[in-house]
Amino acid sequence: MNEMVATKSFSDKPMMSRDEFDAAIRAVGPERYHDLHPFHHLLHGGKLSKGQVAAWALNRYCYQAAVPRKDAAFMSRVHDRQLRRDWIHRIHEHDGHGDDPGGIERWLVLTDNFGLDREYVTSMRGALPATRFAVEAYVNFVREQPLVVAVASSLTELFAPKIHKERIAGMLENYDFIEDRVMAYFKKRLVQAPFDSEFALNFIKDHASSRAEQEACVEAVRFKCNVLWVQLDALYHAYVNGFVPPGAYRPEEVT
Amino acid sequence: MNEMVATKSFSDKPMMSRDEFDAAIRAVGPERYHDLHPFHHLLHGGKLSKGQVAAWALNRYCYQAAVPRKDAAFMSRVHDRQLRRDWIHRIHEHDGHGDDPGGIERWLVLTDNFGLDREYVTSMRGALPATRFAVEAYVNFVREQPLVVAVASSLTELFAPKIHKERIAGMLENYDFIEDRVMAYFKKRLVQAPFDSEFALNFIKDHASSRAEQEACVEAVRFKCNVLWVQLDALYHAYVNGFVPPGAYRPEEVT
Repeated sequence: MNEMVATKSFSDKPMMSRDEFDAAIRAVGPERYHDLHPFHHLLHGGKLSKGQVAAWALNRYCYQAAVPRKDAAFMSRVHDRQLRRDWIHRIHEHDGHGDDPGGIERWLVLTDNFGLDREYVTSMRGALPATRFAVEAYVNFVREQPLVVAVASSLTELFAPKIHKERIAGMLENYDFIEDRVMAYFKKRLVQAPFDSEFALNFIKDHASSRAEQEACVEAVRFKCNVLWVQLDALYHAYVNGFVPPGAYRPEEVT
Repeated sequence: MNEMVATKSFSDKPMMSRDEFDAAIRAVGPERYHDLHPFHHLLHGGKLSKGQVAAWALNRYCYQAAVPRKDAAFMSRVHDRQLRRDWIHRIHEHDGHGDDPGGIERWLVLTDNFGLDREYVTSMRGALPATRFAVEAYVNFVREQPLVVAVASSLTELFAPKIHKERIAGMLENYDFIEDRVMAYFKKRLVQAPFDSEFALNFIKDHASSRAEQEACVEAVRFKCNVLWVQLDALYHAYVNGFVPPGAYRPEEVT
């Protein structure tokens, strides 16, 4: 944690207590987590066509596929063996390990459900460029920022169980093209995310060693919310407002 | 494999056949693998003092500790999920996973044997600067080079089983301060290294797509040999010739 914290300007305030720091991190969710985004209201409320949901699943694949690279980028900078041992299950959860096919495979069950070809999905060539830029910004953030700030950027997981519960209920109820089986990804995350976010939250409380680092951690959660928000803005613009950019997936081709 | 290969000048020769490429990779070992280094002859031949062997174990720890970061750096760049799944056991083998304490822990059993404090070893503050520069050059090489070239740099493992066998026999026979138990690291590698090197060799044969990439792969094995050689040069200069640099471990402090 010796690196300089690369953020704008910091207050001269004293360090936050553990509880204040915890509260500051958690306050980011109600302010800008993507459950507030209009696209999610449409998605969970059953207001989207099958093609629009397919576009969401296709684009969100890019994010899923980036996560293990992000976690490997983090581990490549960690000199503490125990921390690497504590972190590696995140890669297993997405890539699978042994008999577990992993979260990316479970995500592809969802895209299969829309008749999307796996090669097309995994090539990402039909994804929105804004999606791909956003997820790569996340990988690069974790590769470049101080470790404690990189860990903090994972903390949108604090807000994930709520959105996953809403999504499972809302999508199963509202779309006849979504079956229980294809929601396996989100069900699994309901168990994994709370464990991971608790670990990361304790880590940043233990390791942020100045007010500046604490504020950079809060800023990292905002950054990560932006990564998620940008993806929904891009989906809304392309598939609700109808401005599909050149080369991107066009639902009418498939449905 | 689409990136430009960043190496000097290439011949206009046609691509090597798989067999020629295989032979070119294997030819690097007899030319410059560190089993040729005079320090290894001293080490295996029982010609070193306990303090000199301790210095070797202390410095070589830096290399062991860098390997999982190197493998994570590689994985952070791999978009192919199956390749990540095939690679991750390398991190497990060094960091340990579940009940397996891993290769780094087995290495620390060796440094324990010399009465070296674990905090001192893992802090690396007594290691030779040349050692640390060399191992970080390896991590950076893998982070920056084209994937196929990064994979090729692991191929010094082709030459490792022979040196490990010599080392186990030579060290057990020649040093009364080395017991069977502390050679656990090398025994384990006798099983792991052939599997890993076969996988990597097949990978580069399948994926090097031009003469230039093939030559860059051969060059990567030479680079990696240099990473290993530099470490023994530094040990020789410091602990055989007696030019211990400021701040580095001095055996007389401990033995």
